Amino acid sequence: MIQANPHYEELERSYLFSEIARRVAKWQAENPTLPLLRLGIGDVTEPLAPPIAAALVAAAKEMGTPEGFHGYGPEQGYPWLREAIARNDFQARGLNIQADEVFVSDGAKSDTANILDILGRDLTIAVQDPVYPVYVDTNVMLGRAAAIRRLTASEANGFLPGPDSPGADSDVIYLCYPNNPTGVAADRELLSAWVEHALARGSLLLFDAAYAAFIRDDRPVSIYEIPGAERCAIELRSFSKTAGFTGLRCGYTVVPHTLEAQGAGGPVKLRDLWLRRQTTKFNGVAYPVQRAAEAVYSEAGQKAVRRQVAGYLANADVLRRSLEAAGYQVAGGQHAPYLWVRVQGSSWDAFDDFLERLNLVITPGSGFGAAGEGFIRISAFGSAETVARAARRLETGRVEG
Amino acid sequence: MIQANPHYEELERSYLFSEIARRVAKWQAENPTLPLLRLGIGDVTEPLAPPIAAALVAAAKEMGTPEGFHGYGPEQGYPWLREAIARNDFQARGLNIQADEVFVSDGAKSDTANILDILGRDLTIAVQDPVYPVYVDTNVMLGRAAAIRRLTASEANGFLPGPDSPGADSDVIYLCYPNNPTGVAADRELLSAWVEHALARGSLLLFDAAYAAFIRDDRPVSIYEIPGAERCAIELRSFSKTAGFTGLRCGYTVVPHTLEAQGAGGPVKLRDLWLRRQTTKFNGVAYPVQRAAEAVYSEAGQKAVRRQVAGYLANADVLRRSLEAAGYQVAGGQHAPYLWVRVQGSSWDAFDDFLERLNLVITPGSGFGAAGEGFIRISAFGSAETVARAARRLETGRVEG
Repeated sequence: MIQANPHYEELERSYLFSEIARRVAKWQAENPTLPLLRLGIGDVTEPLAPPIAAALVAAAKEMGTPEGFHGYGPEQGYPWLREAIARNDFQARGLNIQADEVFVSDGAKSDTANILDILGRDLTIAVQDPVYPVYVDTNVMLGRAAAIRRLTASEANGFLPGPDSPGADSDVIYLCYPNNPTGVAADRELLSAWVEHALARGSLLLFDAAYAAFIRDDRPVSIYEIPGAERCAIELRSFSKTAGFTGLRCGYTVVPHTLEAQGAGGPVKLRDLWLRRQTTKFNGVAYPVQRAAEAVYSEAGQKAVRRQVAGYLANADVLRRSLEAAGYQVAGGQHAPYLWVRVQGSSWDAFDDFLERLNLVITPGSGFGAAGEGFIRISAFGSAETVARAARRLETGRVEG
Repeated sequence: MIQANPHYEELERSYLFSEIARRVAKWQAENPTLPLLRLGIGDVTEPLAPPIAAALVAAAKEMGTPEGFHGYGPEQGYPWLREAIARNDFQARGLNIQADEVFVSDGAKSDTANILDILGRDLTIAVQDPVYPVYVDTNVMLGRAAAIRRLTASEANGFLPGPDSPGADSDVIYLCYPNNPTGVAADRELLSAWVEHALARGSLLLFDAAYAAFIRDDRPVSIYEIPGAERCAIELRSFSKTAGFTGLRCGYTVVPHTLEAQGAGGPVKLRDLWLRRQTTKFNGVAYPVQRAAEAVYSEAGQKAVRRQVAGYLANADVLRRSLEAAGYQVAGGQHAPYLWVRVQGSSWDAFDDFLERLNLVITPGSGFGAAGEGFIRISAFGSAETVARAARRLETGRVEG
């Protein structure tokens, strides 16, 4: 019998979403007529906007015609999409990111996991607590369980741990802003401090900007707005929350030419390693999906996705006002679709209370790490109508008549 | 500066397709009016068949409607697709493969690479020579350059090395049948010998059956037709060549419940590790692509894809007859879209000769490994018309007037 990867047995089994499903199913069986509303999901609820859906359908039709059929495309994405990304998401903001530094993929989750392939094994890792569990699990799978340090995001630091936090002295530092699950967004000062720290220490920042589209003031949308980031940071982006692509699967990763790491015989360009990784282990994104992503950057596409994001943010505003009116302390939700809410007692007690008293499903904060205990995450994804009903329940403390 | 993965520097740079492109571009610049035909590509050329294209378009349209929109799906694929696969590709052949042993992915290339994540590190690896380079490169990336043994596929063994080959005594054994690049297919006797060997030695077979649809007699299509394979083999399948999905990206991997490996504290089920790997590091295949894959199994879909595959096989027959008429020794092409042709002199000399004398692009066999030297791969993908013209050139030894 051959050896399995022994580190899979070090993974903590994630009970979060299965336990939520179990408790909700049990409650629904006992209360089949009560009006359950879900604020737990981190998934978009609006369909693809018309110009994007139209591009998807047109490209799907092409695939059935001799002249429009597309076989294998470039593993790293079609040049027209990489150029549209570089131009719109970076160059239009004055950032010097070129198309050949942009790698189109099937989503930020895959990239977050796969990027570790190109790094050495003997590295220390810093993640926030609470945290998107993929950062932790993918490192545990590589045998780094003991090398993971946690940067506590607490009320004391406004859920924005800086490079002075214990654990920040690590080789690889995950930053996720706007943050999942806390919904807080970093400002220029904090990001500048992280870039300065990474450059001084020789650390690599993995900057997850999957929620970048939700930023509504002038804070940085990209880590490359901070000078020097092109020498210490990889940025992960996604069309999932920006444009409703959770079911289509498309994202991209930026690895600048100027980003180096120590190879066997001297510095190597991580961009070249990532190109080799992607061309060897990946075969590109479906042609119709890439055409849909390209349509996000059309004038009509931009208008439509901004309207969708504004809708989710308006939901967040409604929920925040109701929660605050009911006396809750609320973080996040200004530049993100998530609210991070302080509760009495444990996260799971609050889960049960919200379910039984308000017939609302939320996500227990403790599911994202020890520092999430005593908090819940409320998602602003949902129709305006659902959110208005949920907000009334939060504000009044009871289910509508 | 953090450490990069040092093993990327041990990769041999693949010059094969870039060198082909360079030589062809140079020749075309010098001979702009000569009628070049390409028999080099391993990519399908027919568009999606109508019932499959229709399913793709219908699902793309759904994504733009509130009632038809799909967000995140199950990472391992929608149940309706996993069930269609288990039923049609296995149960209909009397094989006991269940839907929860089928994992839908973005293609066999990704799975071939990613499956290594769930295995231990200190393993010996056997690959055929000539070989699909991804098997080698993904192991080199993990630091196994010195652990790779090559099973020579030569005229002497009919390009079908068996478990008596030097190197077969390895932990992980890659088998690809029908084979890329040689185009030969294994019979029941050979596969039985490999399964018996794997069970006796405790080896894992990685059975790449991406070209299964091209088999036209009663030889095994799946490794699970061999009793005992469910305890020693993972099977990788793809819709790419079967149904023209190279540009849509969909495949699947079968990991039976009965397949065990040694974990940290005793035997573990590789199926459970793969489920954990996929749910952690992958986020599923685009909904419209999965609907298109489902349509492959409809009655109309099956009829259409069988017709497409028969067309490519008819091309292979035409090419084989012409090559044999011209005195070439030809292997493969009976149950695969590739012909493996003995040439005078080196593979690259033959490449230049075919280009200059016949204005044909082929693939030098030496690009697939040392044992490919002295051979060329001819692909049967292409229109019947292109193939007929190419065949005339091969037979007559000159370009048509």
